[in-house]
Amino acid sequence: MAIVALLTDFGTTDYYVAAMKGSILQVDPKATLVDISHDIPSQDVYHAAFVLRQVLPCFPAKTIFTCVVDPGVGTSRRILAARYSDRVILAPDNGLLTLVHRDADLQEVRTVENRRFFASTLSSTFHGRDIFAPVAGHLSKGVALDHLGPVADRIEILNLAKPVRHPDGSMTGEVQIVDRFGNLITNISVLDLSAARAGHRQLQVSVKGVVVGPLRITYGDVPPGELVALIGSSQMLEIGVNQGSAAERLGARRGDPVQVC
Amino acid sequence: MAIVALLTDFGTTDYYVAAMKGSILQVDPKATLVDISHDIPSQDVYHAAFVLRQVLPCFPAKTIFTCVVDPGVGTSRRILAARYSDRVILAPDNGLLTLVHRDADLQEVRTVENRRFFASTLSSTFHGRDIFAPVAGHLSKGVALDHLGPVADRIEILNLAKPVRHPDGSMTGEVQIVDRFGNLITNISVLDLSAARAGHRQLQVSVKGVVVGPLRITYGDVPPGELVALIGSSQMLEIGVNQGSAAERLGARRGDPVQVC
Amino acid sequence: MAIVALLTDFGTTDYYVAAMKGSILQVDPKATLVDISHDIPSQDVYHAAFVLRQVLPCFPAKTIFTCVVDPGVGTSRRILAARYSDRVILAPDNGLLTLVHRDADLQEVRTVENRRFFASTLSSTFHGRDIFAPVAGHLSKGVALDHLGPVADRIEILNLAKPVRHPDGSMTGEVQIVDRFGNLITNISVLDLSAARAGHRQLQVSVKGVVVGPLRITYGDVPPGELVALIGSSQMLEIGVNQGSAAERLGARRGDPVQVC
Repeated sequence: MAIVALLTDFGTTDYYVAAMKGSILQVDPKATLVDISHDIPSQDVYHAAFVLRQVLPCFPAKTIFTCVVDPGVGTSRRILAARYSDRVILAPDNGLLTLVHRDADLQEVRTVENRRFFASTLSSTFHGRDIFAPVAGHLSKGVALDHLGPVADRIEILNLAKPVRHPDGSMTGEVQIVDRFGNLITNISVLDLSAARAGHRQLQVSVKGVVVGPLRITYGDVPPGELVALIGSSQMLEIGVNQGSAAERLGARRGDPVQVC
Repeated sequence: MAIVALLTDFGTTDYYVAAMKGSILQVDPKATLVDISHDIPSQDVYHAAFVLRQVLPCFPAKTIFTCVVDPGVGTSRRILAARYSDRVILAPDNGLLTLVHRDADLQEVRTVENRRFFASTLSSTFHGRDIFAPVAGHLSKGVALDHLGPVADRIEILNLAKPVRHPDGSMTGEVQIVDRFGNLITNISVLDLSAARAGHRQLQVSVKGVVVGPLRITYGDVPPGELVALIGSSQMLEIGVNQGSAAERLGARRGDPVQVC
Repeated sequence: MAIVALLTDFGTTDYYVAAMKGSILQVDPKATLVDISHDIPSQDVYHAAFVLRQVLPCFPAKTIFTCVVDPGVGTSRRILAARYSDRVILAPDNGLLTLVHRDADLQEVRTVENRRFFASTLSSTFHGRDIFAPVAGHLSKGVALDHLGPVADRIEILNLAKPVRHPDGSMTGEVQIVDRFGNLITNISVLDLSAARAGHRQLQVSVKGVVVGPLRITYGDVPPGELVALIGSSQMLEIGVNQGSAAERLGARRGDPVQVC
């Protein structure tokens, strides 16, 4: 009986999420189900990887993260079970583990192959219900990771854009996530900025050529309606609008350039 | 202390779902609440009936399904409590049980009338909070179905379109559900197709006159962006686009014709 | 180990809600998490105040309501912990407690200041994860309210429009909430109407100058598609359309005038 945390792009108008929940509870009625999100943009593996990375350290040890953003369902793509700091992650081998892998070494990554822990009948289009859910239920009941399958010899990693440091000390990155509030979360981390800051210059942040200004501490450090740059709660450079939406203001979306100089 | 699974069209911006949850927990603080969906399209009884049908067998025995898609709230429409394979379903008598009734005989259907299990004050517009929730709480605590009211002499059934088999062996059905991914779930079941297949012909699927092609196993069996027909996880004929939306591609929605020849 | 009920405007596409849930469970793995809503319109403190007011009495004693609609995060705005009829509410001091305060006296309102119950590292933009969640976890484990900080000397209250009674006995109020179904929930309560009704006149309700008609009991009291006025489940005057949306029909939104004469 563990915490099973669910991360999918299934949305909440269909039967998919509930079919997974029921199938977990059939195997372990004492599992504690927690929704991470079911509203990952459809088939957006990067978005799921980002959310997973942010929430992993918040949950207690033993939590089983069950991640199904899986455009390759039913093809030869593999399913992985990975240990990370005493938590377990189940995910298709499609890049969903990219950020966890980059920032923190995964321990004991296995391919999920032991059909003993699958549903007795497998569909070709809904492994969330037929494989991920029962496997999560068995893990919740205490099945050890090494019962699921052999050690994985490799894992898929997304080829992510990295911020570029220029000779003049300035840096170009890009918008990675637009959140619900219209905040623009970039791929420039607090560490990247520390490096840039070493020259003791006052930073200036721009998005798509529009000057946002220097780094602030929080949204309320500028008047309502104004653009603000800060280190967000994900430890990445973030651009927002106090009580408004930077995405709307700037017409910005993933991939748009962000400059720090 | 049972699993109480909630299926409503209340959405999640208002107080309705939480008022139900609180009211269940007031009666049985040990109930395990599971959200099936609260995003059933507003007042769409058929959509709720479909989701209920799909998730019922996934959940453990003793689960109490509490379904409130209830445009007739406060009128003389009755509330039903039905037993299905050791699970219990609470639903307004408005057709929500149609698919469960058709595919699997319901046992012991009763009308919920015993005010002892209702809230002390009843509103006319929110029986989810005032009747369904407390009744679910009492069922969770172990109250027997026959305490809720008399056996129902009849139940409302939706008059659903059935696929038509033509003399030449071809079949016409229709789109029944458009899911989050833009997949088109039809009213043609795997059994219907088996019958059509008996003639050993290669099936060809069309939607609104557009040829989709033969039956495949999974989305990835066609290149990204192409239409694909397959048996979905609901055991119905389904039309999708690999890594895309068939609903968008075809401008399709519920009721649109699907042909198999 | 208590019920922790979450009310936020974080939406469900980002990591914010799950980061809170994980952080609560890190402190008290036995807490029972219940989602009230995460889809409060972005930074809409009044909407959150209304939802909180409606659901509070539905939940069992000891429930900890954790409310994070917090445009002033990271500024000098305070965080409050209030006792209400044996339940506890955590909320930023920004007006979120307005309706609870107005309708029912809050007991023991404290400012949350004791960093012993906060995360070890605090962000400036996500107190939901770093303050509200761990504090809720500690309350769930049994920490007493008076350990959180000193008694608050004042609390922020929203300046809400009140319905106006005219000399001729008629009354003007306004639309306060548009719900998922397009129902218009007004600021005119059943008590206000009782006063107006005292003159034994038949009430007539209008919205934006359009006559809706007299008070009915439920939606089904008018034919499908017609406007209807009734006392909603929140005990406020509400205007709906039977099996339709009054908001769409009337192009109505918050602040639009409602007349009763």
